[in-house]
Amino acid sequence: MTTSLYETLLCPECNERFDTNTVHDFCQKDSHPLIADYHLNGSFPKESLQGREYNMWRYAEVLPIVKQENRVSLGEGFTPLLSLTTLSGTYSQNQLFLKDESGNPTGSFKARGLSMAVSKAKELGVTEICIPTAGNAGSALSAYCAKAGIKAHIFMPEATPKVFQLDCEIMGAHVTRVKGNIADAAKLMKSQNDGSWFDVSTLKEPFRLEGKKTMGYEIAEQLNWELPDVIIYPTGGGTGLIGIWKAFQEMKKMGWIENIPTRMVAVQGTGCNPITHSFQAGIETIEAFEDPAPTIANGLRVPRPFGDRLVMKTIYESNGTVVDISDEEIKQGLQEFAEAEGLFISPEGAAVWTAYKKLRTSNWIKQNESVVMLNTGSAYKYAENLYSLS
Amino acid sequence: MTTSLYETLLCPECNERFDTNTVHDFCQKDSHPLIADYHLNGSFPKESLQGREYNMWRYAEVLPIVKQENRVSLGEGFTPLLSLTTLSGTYSQNQLFLKDESGNPTGSFKARGLSMAVSKAKELGVTEICIPTAGNAGSALSAYCAKAGIKAHIFMPEATPKVFQLDCEIMGAHVTRVKGNIADAAKLMKSQNDGSWFDVSTLKEPFRLEGKKTMGYEIAEQLNWELPDVIIYPTGGGTGLIGIWKAFQEMKKMGWIENIPTRMVAVQGTGCNPITHSFQAGIETIEAFEDPAPTIANGLRVPRPFGDRLVMKTIYESNGTVVDISDEEIKQGLQEFAEAEGLFISPEGAAVWTAYKKLRTSNWIKQNESVVMLNTGSAYKYAENLYSLS
Repeated sequence: MTTSLYETLLCPECNERFDTNTVHDFCQKDSHPLIADYHLNGSFPKESLQGREYNMWRYAEVLPIVKQENRVSLGEGFTPLLSLTTLSGTYSQNQLFLKDESGNPTGSFKARGLSMAVSKAKELGVTEICIPTAGNAGSALSAYCAKAGIKAHIFMPEATPKVFQLDCEIMGAHVTRVKGNIADAAKLMKSQNDGSWFDVSTLKEPFRLEGKKTMGYEIAEQLNWELPDVIIYPTGGGTGLIGIWKAFQEMKKMGWIENIPTRMVAVQGTGCNPITHSFQAGIETIEAFEDPAPTIANGLRVPRPFGDRLVMKTIYESNGTVVDISDEEIKQGLQEFAEAEGLFISPEGAAVWTAYKKLRTSNWIKQNESVVMLNTGSAYKYAENLYSLS
Repeated sequence: MTTSLYETLLCPECNERFDTNTVHDFCQKDSHPLIADYHLNGSFPKESLQGREYNMWRYAEVLPIVKQENRVSLGEGFTPLLSLTTLSGTYSQNQLFLKDESGNPTGSFKARGLSMAVSKAKELGVTEICIPTAGNAGSALSAYCAKAGIKAHIFMPEATPKVFQLDCEIMGAHVTRVKGNIADAAKLMKSQNDGSWFDVSTLKEPFRLEGKKTMGYEIAEQLNWELPDVIIYPTGGGTGLIGIWKAFQEMKKMGWIENIPTRMVAVQGTGCNPITHSFQAGIETIEAFEDPAPTIANGLRVPRPFGDRLVMKTIYESNGTVVDISDEEIKQGLQEFAEAEGLFISPEGAAVWTAYKKLRTSNWIKQNESVVMLNTGSAYKYAENLYSLS
């Protein structure tokens, strides 16, 4: 039996601490996400991981679920870190790796965050949950709610491929299609919620971040505790980007790693790039992008990440950068990647690959640097966006 | 570095041994699959698995690839064995487990067999490969061939969901759509092959079986070397059924397990059930099923498994049985499973679930028995078969 070292929930802006035994969303005063903090006191040596289960729950001490019986798990996490032998050879002497999240339950990285959020919701007695989604978060929420016996309400833009609706409904969730983008879906959801639904919107709920951060722990463990020089991440709401960075800080505090050399790169679509605007202006907040264009990379169409200050902080602190990619570039990247490596990655993953090439061309990434790219989901769910390729 | 204990390739009918350094298909004299045999001499204790990679290559000693550099891997295997807590409670006190193969590369169990076949083909210098497929085997072959730099030729029935064609073509494979079923696809392929394509049809090539058998090793390891009472398997060509059984025999020879209590159950579709006919007649061969009906479980539509004697032997030796399932039952099972366990399983997986319920109702499976069910692939690739559910 492992024991969670979860200690408190706090707002990093005002340092207010929140009771860990009741349900919270975010700090209303600062409109800022709440962050889970742990007793990182050396009682969790990394050697204790040996022989543990091969999923994200192997890091149970630094996860917020207090009682093991409350875990709602479908086998999420411990996805492969693949060495891209062909493309490494073609493009440089870089050590290129793909953290392939497509094999997760419901086919995406969203499984990690929603497994954690639903587990904690179960632990705190929640019975109904709602979410606005570009697709994959809705699938994942529906799945974990089905397993937990919690009712799920899903709001997704009309442009979401229809397999996502099928997926959610087959799990017993209630799905509403919304004209517009994910922000419009959030608005409609809010208007229909009389307060009985717990809202697990990205970073408006504290524990999806804790699930997502396990990607950072896994990348470190799979690289034998030597962090890569660069991580490239497709950034919609940015939970994964922030989460990986949080994991690195926690590991350093626990003495699992000595330093953090990694530069964090956020990838955006050219049709919706609010992070790029902030980065170019050198500011710490993000303004809502007006009238975001439809894209085949549905997950990138987020007008304004709620955790804007955390996203920008991660990029600045890590000496990272931001890259914008067009749909045309995504399609080319997807095809090239599939033919070279035998991996049919998601449009978001293909955006990451194209961003790598740009950063390598500009020499922002040097020849001898190690790079981990994230493929956040399965391409099969996006098939209806991609038939023009074949 | 591990060393393969691969010793010889033989026909179990005539006991002829085949040279391991050249390419072989099957025993022409007996029209029987060739079987890889190993020096199972105690030099591979199961304790040596500790700390190894979490994919099927952890069992490298009992796999046929001689040089590690010839492995063509996309991270296949070591899929989760999930405890079905809700359904176990509803249906009995059984210990119900799902071996969930949907997270494999290209979304199915076919990844294991084709990773192994392509690796061995690479090791033996093959440059072009062909396959007839109901879908998933084509996806997997295309992916591993892309990674290996081998040209792939795919022949699939017209009724295969179109995402499978997209998948293969995006990997650079050449796809031919064929009027009829998988046997018709095989016929057309044969007529177009001038001998320069290596045919990796189910069990006409010896090493897909070696990849598939790793499911048996994993089930044993994940259950801490206590085999389940029953394994239920959706059976088209039957490689997995035979492979799991082969793994159990090998583990017993190596002293990893003491006995093999497992009864192996083959699940067929009502519209194409040649195994059932043989089982009911108590015979050891299988006649081709005439005019197999289309089904949403594309993988089950195999008129005659080429390894017929091995399939029947596995069922008889293990005191197993055969169950037929209709498309209507598959749809109901899929929905029930999703709502209860949060898992959107493939139609073939849903057929397995429905078979379990029938066998439990008839008391062929007793209340206290442990049961492992196979979900062979991702439901997302079958979405176009399933929209009527939502």
